[in-house]
Amino acid sequence: MNLEQIISSIKQKKSYLCVGLDTDINKIPKHLLKTADPVFEFNKIIIDTTKDLVIAYKPNLAFYESLGAKGIESLRKTIEYIPNNIFKIADAKRGDIGNTSKLYAKTFFETFNFDAVTLSPYMGRDSVLPYQKFNKWTILLVLTSNESSKDLQYLINDSGEKLFESVIKDSLNWSDNSNMMYVVGANRIKDLINIRKIIPNHFLLIPGVGAQGGSLYDFSIDAMNDNCGIIVNVSRSIIYSDSSSNFDKVVRSKALEVQTIMSGLLRTKGIV
Amino acid sequence: MNLEQIISSIKQKKSYLCVGLDTDINKIPKHLLKTADPVFEFNKIIIDTTKDLVIAYKPNLAFYESLGAKGIESLRKTIEYIPNNIFKIADAKRGDIGNTSKLYAKTFFETFNFDAVTLSPYMGRDSVLPYQKFNKWTILLVLTSNESSKDLQYLINDSGEKLFESVIKDSLNWSDNSNMMYVVGANRIKDLINIRKIIPNHFLLIPGVGAQGGSLYDFSIDAMNDNCGIIVNVSRSIIYSDSSSNFDKVVRSKALEVQTIMSGLLRTKGIV
Repeated sequence: MNLEQIISSIKQKKSYLCVGLDTDINKIPKHLLKTADPVFEFNKIIIDTTKDLVIAYKPNLAFYESLGAKGIESLRKTIEYIPNNIFKIADAKRGDIGNTSKLYAKTFFETFNFDAVTLSPYMGRDSVLPYQKFNKWTILLVLTSNESSKDLQYLINDSGEKLFESVIKDSLNWSDNSNMMYVVGANRIKDLINIRKIIPNHFLLIPGVGAQGGSLYDFSIDAMNDNCGIIVNVSRSIIYSDSSSNFDKVVRSKALEVQTIMSGLLRTKGIV
Repeated sequence: MNLEQIISSIKQKKSYLCVGLDTDINKIPKHLLKTADPVFEFNKIIIDTTKDLVIAYKPNLAFYESLGAKGIESLRKTIEYIPNNIFKIADAKRGDIGNTSKLYAKTFFETFNFDAVTLSPYMGRDSVLPYQKFNKWTILLVLTSNESSKDLQYLINDSGEKLFESVIKDSLNWSDNSNMMYVVGANRIKDLINIRKIIPNHFLLIPGVGAQGGSLYDFSIDAMNDNCGIIVNVSRSIIYSDSSSNFDKVVRSKALEVQTIMSGLLRTKGIV
């Protein structure tokens, strides 16, 4: 999906919701454990019940890799099952030398049919460029929602700039808003205005709403641009909202609740 | 394997060689493609022919993930095949929030039986701590061998310190040389003396010898400590040294060549 298709999907669905498919076999409703592929069965139901309310899904690779080859097969089936007009993000946070990055890119963009992959910037531009040859999206970690993000990301350099600001500025030399997004945690609201000064037109992927404590309303107001410009990820508080055999109804109501707030915010901002 | 076992293995084998199992189906000898699992067959031959010369193997996860579920199964079989007294490093370069790191740790240390995993420090300490609960090893990226490592790793902070130095110093608050090693590229020799001042007793994992241009001799002299203190990884220039059906003989002679230099250096330093 290109930039225009993402914006059009947001306007049409009145939503900028991404559901995180952090599917943990120990947390899914017990009746699914009897099926041949419980992880895929769970994802299938989540997708069926939310696909008109979301514009993106984001499987976190750790959850699939922890199950070995079987988990990778569940992931493959999940990606295949997601409708084409929904943005598919591999939450992988990779970052390696060029030779290896090329292989990871091939994995996420070809072996699996992801539209985007999250990357760590620690090894610099040549760990990112191989992904950009695929005419898809890279989503760079800049300011994450975890407590210890401050260990590195807030270090001040000798030009008085925070490290995450240097990461963004540096990346603007080798990408633009048609192939790069940035991860900014929902609880980093005080740095957001500054981030928006550096990148007014880029999309931000925002995790940390819900289980990690960020407020959807507060963040959206400051983070949105004229094209919406944000994709907000919610994982646990939607997908694990119920564990009964009718969990799909609760999941839908939780997703609908978030989408309704988003729809209101999109209207307030004059985007829809 | 604990610190003492690693040191004892180095002394016994007169080697600090790690062979990188960056097994690419497009580069392995063609006659193996007829077998049911060419990636595992190749690794099996590499292991059989080098296991008395090496103290560690380091599969790079990208190469296995690029083949989907089948690649993960090849990886599982490879890890199972490596003898117990050889150190097994998952070159994964992960880094995620605590919840996800816990799952990755479970994956590498339990689902697969790795002894160590490489991690990116960008998200700070709580992306590393979950791995340390397993009484195994974490190997933190600090100064990598790729050209663009300078984009971030050499940024000077407001105390006049380079970013990679801050990463090392910070990590000393939550780890010691019994559970943490550091990745330092073989071509970063001019920073090595300074790194050894900060961490005289830690093991360093050194990639970038061979295909990436670093010199084994130059680096070893400056990097070694009284317990050797370095594990040097060589991948392509050993495993792809020949593509005939007798490739195992060439692979062995290449590995032996490196081990012979190492044996001499260990003697020069009075370690063996």
